[in-house]
Amino acid sequence: MEEKKISKVIDLKRIRVTDAFWKKEIALVRDTVIPYQWEALNDRVPESEPSYCMHNFKVAGRINRKKEQDPDYVQPVYTANGFCVWPEDPENPEDKFYGFVFQDSDFAKWIEAVGYILQQFPDPELEKTADEAIDIVCSAQQPDGYLDTFYIINDISRRFTNLRDHHELYCLGHLIEGAVSYYQATGKEKLLDAACRFAACVAEHIGPEPGKLHGYPGHEIAEMALARLYEVTGQEKYRDLGLYFINERGKKPYYFDSEHPSEIQSREEQRYRYHQSHLPVREQTEAAGHAVRAAYLYSGMADYARLASDYELEAACERIWEDITRRKMYLTGGVGGTSVGEAFSFAYDLPNDTAYAETCASIGMIFFARRMLELNPDSKYADVIERELYNIVLGGMGLDGTSFFYVNPLEVVPEACHEDKRKEHVKAVRQKWFGCACCPPNLARLVSSVGTYVFTETEDTVYVHLYIGSHMEKQLASGLAQIDMQSGFPWNGNVSVQVACESEETFTVALRIPDWCGKYRLKGIEGAAMREEKGYLYITKAWKTDTFRIEFPMEIQVVEADTEVRETIGKAALMRGPIVYCLEESDNGKDMHLLKMDENASYETEQKEISTESVIAIKAQGWRQRKVQNKRLYNTHVKAAYERTVLTWIPYYTWANRGEGEMQVWTRI
Amino acid sequence: MEEKKISKVIDLKRIRVTDAFWKKEIALVRDTVIPYQWEALNDRVPESEPSYCMHNFKVAGRINRKKEQDPDYVQPVYTANGFCVWPEDPENPEDKFYGFVFQDSDFAKWIEAVGYILQQFPDPELEKTADEAIDIVCSAQQPDGYLDTFYIINDISRRFTNLRDHHELYCLGHLIEGAVSYYQATGKEKLLDAACRFAACVAEHIGPEPGKLHGYPGHEIAEMALARLYEVTGQEKYRDLGLYFINERGKKPYYFDSEHPSEIQSREEQRYRYHQSHLPVREQTEAAGHAVRAAYLYSGMADYARLASDYELEAACERIWEDITRRKMYLTGGVGGTSVGEAFSFAYDLPNDTAYAETCASIGMIFFARRMLELNPDSKYADVIERELYNIVLGGMGLDGTSFFYVNPLEVVPEACHEDKRKEHVKAVRQKWFGCACCPPNLARLVSSVGTYVFTETEDTVYVHLYIGSHMEKQLASGLAQIDMQSGFPWNGNVSVQVACESEETFTVALRIPDWCGKYRLKGIEGAAMREEKGYLYITKAWKTDTFRIEFPMEIQVVEADTEVRETIGKAALMRGPIVYCLEESDNGKDMHLLKMDENASYETEQKEISTESVIAIKAQGWRQRKVQNKRLYNTHVKAAYERTVLTWIPYYTWANRGEGEMQVWTRI
Repeated sequence: MEEKKISKVIDLKRIRVTDAFWKKEIALVRDTVIPYQWEALNDRVPESEPSYCMHNFKVAGRINRKKEQDPDYVQPVYTANGFCVWPEDPENPEDKFYGFVFQDSDFAKWIEAVGYILQQFPDPELEKTADEAIDIVCSAQQPDGYLDTFYIINDISRRFTNLRDHHELYCLGHLIEGAVSYYQATGKEKLLDAACRFAACVAEHIGPEPGKLHGYPGHEIAEMALARLYEVTGQEKYRDLGLYFINERGKKPYYFDSEHPSEIQSREEQRYRYHQSHLPVREQTEAAGHAVRAAYLYSGMADYARLASDYELEAACERIWEDITRRKMYLTGGVGGTSVGEAFSFAYDLPNDTAYAETCASIGMIFFARRMLELNPDSKYADVIERELYNIVLGGMGLDGTSFFYVNPLEVVPEACHEDKRKEHVKAVRQKWFGCACCPPNLARLVSSVGTYVFTETEDTVYVHLYIGSHMEKQLASGLAQIDMQSGFPWNGNVSVQVACESEETFTVALRIPDWCGKYRLKGIEGAAMREEKGYLYITKAWKTDTFRIEFPMEIQVVEADTEVRETIGKAALMRGPIVYCLEESDNGKDMHLLKMDENASYETEQKEISTESVIAIKAQGWRQRKVQNKRLYNTHVKAAYERTVLTWIPYYTWANRGEGEMQVWTRI
Repeated sequence: MEEKKISKVIDLKRIRVTDAFWKKEIALVRDTVIPYQWEALNDRVPESEPSYCMHNFKVAGRINRKKEQDPDYVQPVYTANGFCVWPEDPENPEDKFYGFVFQDSDFAKWIEAVGYILQQFPDPELEKTADEAIDIVCSAQQPDGYLDTFYIINDISRRFTNLRDHHELYCLGHLIEGAVSYYQATGKEKLLDAACRFAACVAEHIGPEPGKLHGYPGHEIAEMALARLYEVTGQEKYRDLGLYFINERGKKPYYFDSEHPSEIQSREEQRYRYHQSHLPVREQTEAAGHAVRAAYLYSGMADYARLASDYELEAACERIWEDITRRKMYLTGGVGGTSVGEAFSFAYDLPNDTAYAETCASIGMIFFARRMLELNPDSKYADVIERELYNIVLGGMGLDGTSFFYVNPLEVVPEACHEDKRKEHVKAVRQKWFGCACCPPNLARLVSSVGTYVFTETEDTVYVHLYIGSHMEKQLASGLAQIDMQSGFPWNGNVSVQVACESEETFTVALRIPDWCGKYRLKGIEGAAMREEKGYLYITKAWKTDTFRIEFPMEIQVVEADTEVRETIGKAALMRGPIVYCLEESDNGKDMHLLKMDENASYETEQKEISTESVIAIKAQGWRQRKVQNKRLYNTHVKAAYERTVLTWIPYYTWANRGEGEMQVWTRI
């Protein structure tokens, strides 16, 4: 069998994002989100639930020091049952563990984003803050490498007894991701060593050998993190541990049952699906359960499909990919149709107003997609990355950079969010921070590393997946090639690329043809062999100093969902380029269920200011159904009467930046 | 101020239901439901959760006997915390309390239905069974009159400590209702005495006097039951206790807080609304909280508005009535838009697929409506009774009489019920019995007493509220008047009435003009003064031996909801007479979201057999949207293409009698 050609991710050191649109976003993360997060980790954000993240590390560190200083010191044992315990006096918390069991990961996500920023923007002051934080975190580590403050503070003898719910391996995964990022930025090994030691400690307790626990994480991420740690350190034990988690998952008898024997009777199939542990992963055929966990698992599966050339694993990934993107993904890229278990719902069940569509799940989809791209350069993966980035990722963060959405609905009626407990999870305005702060720091690490999603490479090919203006360097046999791309995305489809090689050399530039376009106009290429394959235009020539342009016409598109989707039947939405549009009350008034699009409307773009953002809005003639004034709730049907109205759509990612109001992506047509 | 003219309910002894349609339903209750219920109360229904109702009474009786026989006997004390405890071995339960805290009420509802049946159909064998059951129940009563097996068995010292959750006063209320019914049927006083003694015991502990608890029921019903007990016994202490419950409810500081001080901090406004205890009842302006509780409370309020000529209370009832019927009631009469708290949702929030619309809540609406009718003969109340009866009440029971719906959705996709936890409460097929068996016995007591809803009377007027063929007797100054009504309802609107008086005497017959019709053709009346007022046609004349006919044209009506109702925008439904229609998969195929009604269709009726029922179905030309075969989930919109199809509607009450399938009341138009 031909060995698979892997197209490799390029790390941030070799990429410089020059894109006006994204530089602004990255700067927001650098200048606003990261400092804000640091305040949040230290419980200094007013009117926001404290994180207790750094508090917990400090408490664990103090316990360690006491033990060192006094061999007779007996650590108090607290109950380690709770998922979430808050202090009675938040101003003066005691030396206990507070917050969710996974609170440590807040730091890890922060340091990961810090690492990405430092790789691009040296900042000694930020690095100093980070080093001090790392000292605090490392002070909590146990002599054997264990590093999870929930058990260190509460009762270390109980560690590894509840892999299903207690997120130790999740914290390990995030710690690795953060440590690698910071190491790559600074070359400093302290946190990387700590992460390696924690991973080694876990490998001492969990694995195939007799006497070890045959478990796996309740919340996946360690799988892909360990793959990354292996790639950075070259140490196979990390790869082996991650692969063990992948292989062990879903085997019968269920490991989680051995941890929770009293629940076996009452446990439903559904419960196993929540953790994607209902079947061995290679037998799974559809996306199931908690969407973030799922996307992280599938990402890890794709990693090991690559690292182990495991075609069976790759086939499982591909089946699941198709299931998600063909049956379980919102137009915005959101995944997780149900708030029950924050999970994938059944095929085509995509309710707009009760959607979960967690920001983190979309970030997980980006991870999954990039890994699939590495295995198989098919534009369908990069199309999803683009869809997630310009809609959910950008929309997950307010334009102010200090307010965030967990849940990304496609339809909101504020009254329903306030009054209807079934929509409790849906917020009509972004929240400042969350006690369970997974999404904001996840956004920060994604946006700050967005440059790594632009290109991948093989020996002889540079793939351009995203049209985010960037500069990158490629090592060729004859020397370095500088590749510089300018792009008008997401507002226009004009891209220009300069290639400058030290010496003339033949290689290929492969340009993604976006799914929302399918066509392009190429200018300035001569003497090249060109072919299209799986959504990429491959341009092979001897490059020296070349400039070419490619234009993707960005037309307004009226889109509809498959007729199997009950929630959108009779409705349509607008897209332009990668951007999904929505109607907001600010522009279109209340009672948006009365609005209707006109089949024959002509759509026009218009520059519009939304808070600090200048965007392209779309206007068209549409209809507003007349309200009928009746004495009764139910009346004889009369053909609906409509009056003309102008409908104004704005980019979905800018919704909820002008106060609370109705919003909808899908409108009757 | 002019004293209010009350139109009085006529008890079953003076009414005989002769209606072909309803005789069949009553016979089903008599011959099938009541015997089936008796088996259920005794845990003898296979494949159904045991009730433990009679078990608990027997256990309590055994404890009493042991105490009598052995003065040193020490009763074991169990924990009385649980709401719902089931035995480890259901075949051989121990001498403990099992089931929900309100399990006693199962018996009470059964005996109430038995009483109604015996009032109409003497049945010595049934009466013997009932007497034996009553002996068992009374054996559980304490020397001071207390009679709630949950506390008698678990720990009687803790009685009255959790009025909010533990349903003692709910059980009292049902016991009174059952006891009065059985007393009215048989003249036997044993159960009535037991109920009176329990009520007196409660009055010893709860009331305005110092040293008593200033509480009220967590689940209302005792209010209206005590009003009824007062009317039967003439003893004012029962009326005073019920009125105390009404008056005390919602006062600050909240009584339930005094029972549950630890919850005060975390208790939300919502939580008080659940029990309708967020405001004093006279200040309440909208229907709120658990819909069954709410409807029972409003019924009680209407009782005391009448008994105490309390206009402020009546005004509150009227405001709430308008809120429900103008903003919070489904087309079927269902109330309770949200499964969260089985509660009223906010105004116009009437989702079809996640509806709660509990059968019991609709029965509660019938109670409320009848009481409002007594205060104020306005057809709007009787219209609701009719809507509830022909849709939710009939639909709540399978045509076999042994399967039941708790929840009455207006749209069902079986896959969603199975896969989607948000719709867990929605069943696509009727269930055999329920561990929490409130609806089936409630249906039995309602259907068996349906005759009491047909007429009310004042001294000089007989009101005909429902066109259910019946015979009634009215006492006039000059002797008895026999009134005999035949009706084609619900299949045709032809009604004929014979009046036969011992002597000629002038009085009024007031006939309701149904809201779905608004017009009528009257034949055979001569020399009468006629006027229309609040939806009634008042015919005043000297009656002797008269026969007249009134015809209400039963045309098929295409109806729509107010434009404020988001869930039904762009949709319509069919009604014919009082009957709401629906589409079922059996007749119309799968994927009913693709169906569309034709604005210009002509609708035709057709006789159709659904299981054992011969009904009028409706057929019309309609449309089925063509499925679009696409590779992707989201595609460029193309104007929807439709193909002709014949749509077949059946009465809503007959749905889910032909296996599992999709159903919808509202269809796109």
